[in-house]
Amino acid sequence: MTAAIKADWIAADWGTSNLRVWAMAHDGSVVAEACSDQGMGKLDRDGFEPAFLDLAGAWIDGPTTVIACGMVGARQGWAEAKYARVPCPATSDALSQATTKHPDLSVHIIPGVCQDSPADVMRGEETQIAGFLARNLNWDGVICLPGTHTKWVHVSANEIVSFQTFMTGEMFAAISQSTVLRHSVASEGWDDTAFETALSDTMSRPERLATNLFSLRAEGLLHDMSATTARARLSGLLIGAELAGARPYWLGQQIAVIGAGKISALYIKALGLQGVPATQVQGDSVTLAGLTAAYRRLKG
Amino acid sequence: MTAAIKADWIAADWGTSNLRVWAMAHDGSVVAEACSDQGMGKLDRDGFEPAFLDLAGAWIDGPTTVIACGMVGARQGWAEAKYARVPCPATSDALSQATTKHPDLSVHIIPGVCQDSPADVMRGEETQIAGFLARNLNWDGVICLPGTHTKWVHVSANEIVSFQTFMTGEMFAAISQSTVLRHSVASEGWDDTAFETALSDTMSRPERLATNLFSLRAEGLLHDMSATTARARLSGLLIGAELAGARPYWLGQQIAVIGAGKISALYIKALGLQGVPATQVQGDSVTLAGLTAAYRRLKG
Repeated sequence: MTAAIKADWIAADWGTSNLRVWAMAHDGSVVAEACSDQGMGKLDRDGFEPAFLDLAGAWIDGPTTVIACGMVGARQGWAEAKYARVPCPATSDALSQATTKHPDLSVHIIPGVCQDSPADVMRGEETQIAGFLARNLNWDGVICLPGTHTKWVHVSANEIVSFQTFMTGEMFAAISQSTVLRHSVASEGWDDTAFETALSDTMSRPERLATNLFSLRAEGLLHDMSATTARARLSGLLIGAELAGARPYWLGQQIAVIGAGKISALYIKALGLQGVPATQVQGDSVTLAGLTAAYRRLKG
Repeated sequence: MTAAIKADWIAADWGTSNLRVWAMAHDGSVVAEACSDQGMGKLDRDGFEPAFLDLAGAWIDGPTTVIACGMVGARQGWAEAKYARVPCPATSDALSQATTKHPDLSVHIIPGVCQDSPADVMRGEETQIAGFLARNLNWDGVICLPGTHTKWVHVSANEIVSFQTFMTGEMFAAISQSTVLRHSVASEGWDDTAFETALSDTMSRPERLATNLFSLRAEGLLHDMSATTARARLSGLLIGAELAGARPYWLGQQIAVIGAGKISALYIKALGLQGVPATQVQGDSVTLAGLTAAYRRLKG
């Protein structure tokens, strides 16, 4: 018979699509972890507690604090955690407390960060940034967080100074799945040269994006361009246009790219081609560091 | 009892989404018309003849010629009508004949036009251009055909010299329906000022498209921007980026915009704001003129 797992506290990264939880010990080590597809996008307000207990309920034995970040703090989340406004530390102390029926549970949600002009918002990334800064005190530079909505974040003196979101990842999905290019773009496979050429095309001529997109279709019809090449080209066109728009963020800056996946590697490669060195940082690891830092501040 | 309608010949505009047919008299007048949603995208090769006869079968009384344009001539269409290559007249005589089991039917499909570099294709628009030129002999200038895939076509000496397709219409649909902006963008309604501001934003800074898109979401969350304003802004951002990319086509040119709908009016407005006068031309009317010109050439 194995001993039951008990959490001293529980860390939760709760985004639109997924819920990820860690059973934590007081010393900051991970005792157990679990995840499910019960993202905030699938739940109404009454659905959050059951979704959480399904995953982490067995770890609770006596009063337990939960620290959560991400879309769980949106207006339609478990409890709204109102945005902090830039310039601000990535680590807000104004956690929101969520209502729970469980007698032993105390749930605290980390607020997102907003910017008035240009209007922009983040939820979850601020916790990754806080985790990164907890490990790299007084680091100044730009943090790039690639994903569905890629963020470029200017960090200085342990504060988020400004940031800018690009819908690049979501445009890739919408264009490759919901337009005529679904016939032309493979769902996997890669072509480095095609990526680099396309990247350079839209970095220098970003205004040609919508016509370069249709060319992917025409190149397939007229010149038998492969669906794998089209996939790499589509990615290069979109990231190239983003790099052209984000130039004030990366030019002459020290860059950290947070994220483990293939997409972060593409950003690092693309930045490298511009002569900009960038360091890749594991996303999960800084998320957990940010949640841990918030727990420690809460417990004084 | 009414007399049965009889076509001397039948004109067909057969695109990806719809089939439109006209019963024509020898003198070029329209006797009757009909349409259905049996576009090429829904049909396999054996499906074309039944779909056509469902709509136009009752008009056939004795040997009848059909002239068709559009995606019906694609590789997956009723019969492939291979592209003519620019520079070329919009009016090719190399019609493809489709196989039919009907003893009285003779079906001819107008080929599309292609361009090697940059790779580009059109099917259907060439017939509208031919119809426009049949009415405006020796017209030199640029024809803009707004739609799912907007075309800019340089016409000189009755030939298509070059052209360029922008996926603007399809990007509008994919972004407003298949991304997070579906929560922010209304399905109807309008805001002229928002359209004009957004148009100007991406005309001058096309590289900011992907970040301006996310701003629509953030402006809604932070500043209560209405879904109607977001709709007009999205349209302005995409058309502005297109105009920036199509500048070599419209700058200092005489422009004809083919299309009756609201979308053509937006292009004319956008061009007008750049000081470029553009004439709006009814799309159906030039389609029919182009099909009629092809019929007359076939009959010598």
